[in-house]
Amino acid sequence: MSNAIDRGKIEALKSMLLSLHKGESIEELKRKFKDVLETISPVEIPLVEQELVREGVSISEILRLCDLHVELIRDTLRSSLLMDVPKGHPVSLISRENEHIAKLAEALNVYAGALSKASSGEAESHLKAISNILAELRKSRLHYRKIQMLIFPYLERRGITAIPRVLWGREDQVIVKLRELSTLVEKELTHPKEYPNIAEKAMEVSREISDLIFREERILLPAVWILLSEGEWVAIHEAAKDIGYLIPIDVEWASRAKLLLPYEVNGVVTREQVESLPQEFKFAALATLAPDTYEVRSEEDLEFETGFLSKDEVEAIFRHLPIEVTYADVNDRVTFFSQSIFRKGFARTKTIIGRRLGYCHPPRLEHFVKSNVDDLKAGKS
Amino acid sequence: MSNAIDRGKIEALKSMLLSLHKGESIEELKRKFKDVLETISPVEIPLVEQELVREGVSISEILRLCDLHVELIRDTLRSSLLMDVPKGHPVSLISRENEHIAKLAEALNVYAGALSKASSGEAESHLKAISNILAELRKSRLHYRKIQMLIFPYLERRGITAIPRVLWGREDQVIVKLRELSTLVEKELTHPKEYPNIAEKAMEVSREISDLIFREERILLPAVWILLSEGEWVAIHEAAKDIGYLIPIDVEWASRAKLLLPYEVNGVVTREQVESLPQEFKFAALATLAPDTYEVRSEEDLEFETGFLSKDEVEAIFRHLPIEVTYADVNDRVTFFSQSIFRKGFARTKTIIGRRLGYCHPPRLEHFVKSNVDDLKAGKS
Repeated sequence: MSNAIDRGKIEALKSMLLSLHKGESIEELKRKFKDVLETISPVEIPLVEQELVREGVSISEILRLCDLHVELIRDTLRSSLLMDVPKGHPVSLISRENEHIAKLAEALNVYAGALSKASSGEAESHLKAISNILAELRKSRLHYRKIQMLIFPYLERRGITAIPRVLWGREDQVIVKLRELSTLVEKELTHPKEYPNIAEKAMEVSREISDLIFREERILLPAVWILLSEGEWVAIHEAAKDIGYLIPIDVEWASRAKLLLPYEVNGVVTREQVESLPQEFKFAALATLAPDTYEVRSEEDLEFETGFLSKDEVEAIFRHLPIEVTYADVNDRVTFFSQSIFRKGFARTKTIIGRRLGYCHPPRLEHFVKSNVDDLKAGKS
Repeated sequence: MSNAIDRGKIEALKSMLLSLHKGESIEELKRKFKDVLETISPVEIPLVEQELVREGVSISEILRLCDLHVELIRDTLRSSLLMDVPKGHPVSLISRENEHIAKLAEALNVYAGALSKASSGEAESHLKAISNILAELRKSRLHYRKIQMLIFPYLERRGITAIPRVLWGREDQVIVKLRELSTLVEKELTHPKEYPNIAEKAMEVSREISDLIFREERILLPAVWILLSEGEWVAIHEAAKDIGYLIPIDVEWASRAKLLLPYEVNGVVTREQVESLPQEFKFAALATLAPDTYEVRSEEDLEFETGFLSKDEVEAIFRHLPIEVTYADVNDRVTFFSQSIFRKGFARTKTIIGRRLGYCHPPRLEHFVKSNVDDLKAGKS
């Protein structure tokens, strides 16, 4: 990226700021400055902002540009392939999370720019602002988790594994850098020493976050929107609500399609799908020799709410838990206990199978055991 | 109990001590002092010992009497009903544990007697001896545990529940008192203050232990020897070895009978059995209206190595564990995860079922995960 930004663009943004200051709406501004805005790419905005900082425009003024920036993302960055995504759909919500993250990343960049040339007197307030922004940005783990845990498995099922691994690598790097930066900033707040270094790192991570947003909006989301069936989105939607969103859910999306988990999906990518995919995915999909057809359920498996296990596997899991369990049935009879290879306590013996729970402890503890069992049965504790 | 012991008995024991000192064996002594020994009941020995302490006989001398005491228990206390118990049989081993415990309890009594009239200069060494004996005695939890966890369930199955509860109450009381006494002794060793009080408590717990030995040898063990079938002893034997004995197993007892767990036992007590029972058990067995016929296994239950659970119960147990589990099968595919109502970590989602384990973490951790899985598969860690 070149740092040489056209003077005209800078002046245009400055006068936009003035208009914003006067209370004009983003929509009005977009109409008024249509021509010049069309010449400014979203990636240029951070550079223009740095320039404005350098020229002494106040940070709070510049931060108003963030909203404009997000508008530009919406208009120009977001893929036209996503035009027909309904509101409240996971793709729409993930995209709205990106707008939220984009604003934060941009604010981080603005403060980092100011910090880089701040006097040591000014540095503290910038550091505090950065600290607050980082705390918010670190919540984007929830955003990435939805992509990593809900969306990627459906791509993997289609044999598309490289792109998810690369993206996860970058997402992870951002999260790690945000964590490290937070630590640095907290240290710096108590022992100021090297804030220009912090400014540089903050700008770097801000750039990386923006880059991820670009990849999601232009590549990942359009691709999964094309590839995944409605039933898959039903499953993603349900699980995504468990994980949670960074933004309020505006519209409750619903579908009658039958929920489809990755292991239930026939991972074949059709020729039509390949044709409509963004370029980066086209290569990946074409290179895919075979979808994943692993049968997760074996014949003798028990079907649980959250997966499949044979009886032997259930037993093996109990044997390797760090705790042991004694289970009494609804009639207060011991019907099962587990033995762990990590046991440190007393040995349980099979002679207690069928025993009344009340007889498994000394009389001294009888009342204690009974009142606990009563509480459990009453739904207390 | 009266403290007035016949002078003749005291003198006889004193001369026995002298002979012991000269190296004569217990067998020789028993022959030599046959007449006088027959007049001394095992419960009198502790009283005679107290008397000897009072008369200034050294403690180490008196402790030699313990062996004699145990011999007397073997000859007179042990029920004739146990004559045909084979060596290495659980009843025999539990009985040998009683001899071991009896010696310790008696030594405790001797030192407690000495402590009660010790000068503060002498007290410390007595307290140290008592501390060591208590440490050994507290291991008798293993003895009681075998009775409580292995033998009692078979009585309960026969509808005999009161005697086990009463015995467990006394056993528990002994264990609690031993623990409290240990704490007192440790405190006293650093801040001597009230050792006569300790002496009194030590004599009390020693008496209670001896009383339990009496109840086991005269009542409990003869009764279970009559009531329990060979297959039940096979089960008890196996589990008892897991719990462990306080004494080395002298003979390896084996039986071809099929192992019978309590829930497999038809708990009917026959008229012949009732007739041969010790008096205390006769009442209990006659009063028993009905054996326990609870069917521990329900129709839809899965049979595990250590009990019976329905699929719903397995799921309910996982849901109430304080930890969560993600399970990958032999092909490194996630096939199951558990969700705990106590979860504090991230939400697991069904979209990972069937996923390759290697794709469940960021690339940064891939090597770490792989090397852990490899270690597990190689049986390491």
